[in-house]
Amino acid sequence: MASRLRVLVIGGVACGPKTASRLKRLLPDADVTMIEKGAIVSYGACGLPYYVEGLFPDVNMLTETPVGVSRTPIFFEKAKGFRVLTRTEALRIDSRGKTIRVRDLDTHGENDMPYDKLVIATGGSPLRPPIDGIDLNNVWYVRELQDAASLVESIEKLGLRKAVLIGAGYINMEMAEALVKKGLDVTVVEMFDQIMPQFLDPDMAMLVQKHLQAKGVRLALGEAVTAITGNGKVESIKTDKQAIPADLAIVAVGVRPNDRLARDAGLLCAPKGGIVINSYCQTSDPHIYAGGDCVVNHYVHPITGAPLYVPLGSTANKHGRTIANHIAGLTSPFCGITGTGVCKVFDFTVGRTGMSERLAQELNLDVETAVWSGPDMPHYLPGSKPLIIKMVASKRYRKLLGVQIVGMGDGSKRLDVAASAIFFGATLDQIGAIDLGYAPPYSPPIDPLATTAHVLLNKMNGIAKGIPPLAAKQIMDQQKDVILLDVRTPKEYDEMRLPDDRVVHIPLGALRERIQDLPKDRDILAFCKVSMRGYEAQRILNAAGFERVWFIEGGLVAWPFNVWTKN
Amino acid sequence: MASRLRVLVIGGVACGPKTASRLKRLLPDADVTMIEKGAIVSYGACGLPYYVEGLFPDVNMLTETPVGVSRTPIFFEKAKGFRVLTRTEALRIDSRGKTIRVRDLDTHGENDMPYDKLVIATGGSPLRPPIDGIDLNNVWYVRELQDAASLVESIEKLGLRKAVLIGAGYINMEMAEALVKKGLDVTVVEMFDQIMPQFLDPDMAMLVQKHLQAKGVRLALGEAVTAITGNGKVESIKTDKQAIPADLAIVAVGVRPNDRLARDAGLLCAPKGGIVINSYCQTSDPHIYAGGDCVVNHYVHPITGAPLYVPLGSTANKHGRTIANHIAGLTSPFCGITGTGVCKVFDFTVGRTGMSERLAQELNLDVETAVWSGPDMPHYLPGSKPLIIKMVASKRYRKLLGVQIVGMGDGSKRLDVAASAIFFGATLDQIGAIDLGYAPPYSPPIDPLATTAHVLLNKMNGIAKGIPPLAAKQIMDQQKDVILLDVRTPKEYDEMRLPDDRVVHIPLGALRERIQDLPKDRDILAFCKVSMRGYEAQRILNAAGFERVWFIEGGLVAWPFNVWTKN
Repeated sequence: MASRLRVLVIGGVACGPKTASRLKRLLPDADVTMIEKGAIVSYGACGLPYYVEGLFPDVNMLTETPVGVSRTPIFFEKAKGFRVLTRTEALRIDSRGKTIRVRDLDTHGENDMPYDKLVIATGGSPLRPPIDGIDLNNVWYVRELQDAASLVESIEKLGLRKAVLIGAGYINMEMAEALVKKGLDVTVVEMFDQIMPQFLDPDMAMLVQKHLQAKGVRLALGEAVTAITGNGKVESIKTDKQAIPADLAIVAVGVRPNDRLARDAGLLCAPKGGIVINSYCQTSDPHIYAGGDCVVNHYVHPITGAPLYVPLGSTANKHGRTIANHIAGLTSPFCGITGTGVCKVFDFTVGRTGMSERLAQELNLDVETAVWSGPDMPHYLPGSKPLIIKMVASKRYRKLLGVQIVGMGDGSKRLDVAASAIFFGATLDQIGAIDLGYAPPYSPPIDPLATTAHVLLNKMNGIAKGIPPLAAKQIMDQQKDVILLDVRTPKEYDEMRLPDDRVVHIPLGALRERIQDLPKDRDILAFCKVSMRGYEAQRILNAAGFERVWFIEGGLVAWPFNVWTKN
Repeated sequence: MASRLRVLVIGGVACGPKTASRLKRLLPDADVTMIEKGAIVSYGACGLPYYVEGLFPDVNMLTETPVGVSRTPIFFEKAKGFRVLTRTEALRIDSRGKTIRVRDLDTHGENDMPYDKLVIATGGSPLRPPIDGIDLNNVWYVRELQDAASLVESIEKLGLRKAVLIGAGYINMEMAEALVKKGLDVTVVEMFDQIMPQFLDPDMAMLVQKHLQAKGVRLALGEAVTAITGNGKVESIKTDKQAIPADLAIVAVGVRPNDRLARDAGLLCAPKGGIVINSYCQTSDPHIYAGGDCVVNHYVHPITGAPLYVPLGSTANKHGRTIANHIAGLTSPFCGITGTGVCKVFDFTVGRTGMSERLAQELNLDVETAVWSGPDMPHYLPGSKPLIIKMVASKRYRKLLGVQIVGMGDGSKRLDVAASAIFFGATLDQIGAIDLGYAPPYSPPIDPLATTAHVLLNKMNGIAKGIPPLAAKQIMDQQKDVILLDVRTPKEYDEMRLPDDRVVHIPLGALRERIQDLPKDRDILAFCKVSMRGYEAQRILNAAGFERVWFIEGGLVAWPFNVWTKN
């Protein structure tokens, strides 16, 4: 009998088990072993905040298959046909001799394991900020099963009440919701002056901040944590501006790729960390593959293609499939990611795909943007909810570069369509033309994503003169005599208003008749609830010879500053 | 002053108002008039079933803007700047003289209106089957506002209880739900032997049929209605098989395009009806445009491009934008549709985009299909719900041709991604590679659409030997000695089973040990709940030298026949 292909997989969380399972389906004769440093394999780490929130009763459900079978080493051996060694650490790779040195963490015994193909799926680790008190009790990272289990247990047993979340990335957004729903008092501290700084542009972040505050979350933005203090356990979080009383802290300030094994073996890694792979997930040694949170991904885009470190379970699974396919001789390249992410923040869906405006500016790209707001289905249906969409496109190619979506409406669907559109290099015209499913429970006749593309096209064609909310605010702050033209109905005006005495209220239907009330020698910013009518007003005024007219994009729904409301 | 461009728009429901509104934004000086035969303009006809269901209190909300302003002729004149003539019928077009003859339906006066550009947006009309009794009282078409208003009023005032819905297309699916929720007794009669025959393949239709029946809807499939009988009003619906007592009937057996004006003017129309347009919505007379339910669309597809009559409000709006743009000199071609449709049927989302398997076969295309079932988000979240996806792809090009989705899970999102993928000519590998948004409240790490594409690729690569449910049933009916290998856990087996004494139950984890219990000389159909494990079983048996093994695609969740359950 010919010798069997020996495949070693280092890491047993997401990419590792996916690789090993598929490989055994493709090559039943292969000799596949997966080693894992921890005691538990193949768990859904992304589910931890939902366990903390109490949406399911047992954290071990994250290690189970959908029908409740626990994914133990025995499960993998019996059902999937490969060997799993837990509590086993890979110490180093001898790529010339094609062996790895491993240590049994219980017996401390070491030995060498030979391979024909090696898969590095060592994942990522939470960044630990080098501040005093980081090792105090009641400081958690929400990364592994036992973290979440001990957090929940401590909250209950010790009666912890005051949580400070350090870092305002998506993990702490999910944790903020989980802890508020458990009745805790929550403050989020973020060094940047907005939440989700790697993820959202400031205008979109501010809308999520409003929502968080409405849900009772306190935000300390633009504040650096300098120390955690307390007598053995957390008592206070010190920032450069204040001291926040706390009995627990959750640290989520980023993840770094676990690339040490690869670096030590001389494999190519990115300067800021992360193993560099090709489209088949091969490292610079073709017999060694890597995938999951330990690698940097290519950024798939018609215009730019920088490498990107985005650790996500979805990408890890794609890597696993790609690696197994390539080892088995099926070539299905994994071309990269488009930087898509989505996060539930209380009643908001918050998503981004492709480039933010900020990133596009850093890359010196000539972009146009549009902010749109409106309902996710026809207004007459009771389930209709608002969405705010920001779109970034290349001026020269008229191609979509990025989309950000926030709001209570169904943003996840539009995000995935946008991610697909970017993947396929869509122009804005194409986005308006896709034959999306239409029925009232699912969408307005023109989908919000198409409408946003239309606004952006109208801007590029010089028809719509939209001004983004932050730029409008800047004009309001700088120009004393600016006219804020509210073209909503009297009923709407009665219920909610921009709190500014420069507001002139003329309902759109009366604008043509009252046009002489407005001066041509002052800047006019028109707006309504969502700014469809604001745009109409701009066109009507343009036609009457007014040149200094813009509409505030997204209207009051997308206005990130204060609004006066009747109740 | 130069003479203003005169644009006449015939038809005031969807495409008409969209065209006129946008045109006035693009060309404020244009002289735009919209004429409409009915008394009401610009209403959301797609919302009628939801009014009948009682989701909103006043049918006139369908004529209002999202902020409650009624879209009357005065509204259009004041806010949008164009003239609207209701109760005005276009009698004929003189394309040489560039005038239309119109009649005032109140005064019966006639006159000629000149145009530079004409837009035909005359919509569609419900087909009226030529059967006895079709004109009896209490027979409705749900097409116009007054239809739905009088239906709801009659149900309440006359105490109507027994509804027979003639035709099982998407309108009557929505009406079935609406009327059951109003407490009526509902029977759907359909000439074809499945519901939604133009929309779904039989295997997918059967799953929706099961759901309808579970909700108390009676189905009379494969029955032709021969007459409606009653003394002045509906008392019974006669089919070729039975007489069904009824006190109301709703007829929705299709829509035909209102193309008479165009035909009489000598414009090119499709043989089966519908005005033929180019990518700018121009008819065969370049000064005459057409859009909405009166035209046939191009079918955008990398492989086939037949014309298609799919009357939908979403497409009508795209036509309107395209027409206005072209008249104003902005060229943004509308390349066509991909046959996307979505429909809420009680707790199910039912959607299709692209080609069904049946259509692909009619076109003699060499296709492969896969049926997949599974949860729409991780199983540990309480909101997780099942989806069943069927995918049709070209064998030669490995490109996606069509997707059908049914189930309680979020099918609308996957449908829109699939519609985008087909629009961009995606291969199956690309569908697996799109960077879709992942977080537990929105998706499993590998999106259902990607997983279905993977199953299809595995089939094409000869790794997965899936057999679709209907084909499996055929084998079960024809081969007495087939083995039905259930590889689920004992707990699952205890709760639900295939009611067939040829079932052999061996949990997947025990299969390698008990492999000698199975014969190699008989066909084996392996299955589980969703058939991931069924597929694993097939691979394990293949590796052990079994050649006659298939797995039943979609498992018990997608099984359209009876299943035994404990309770």
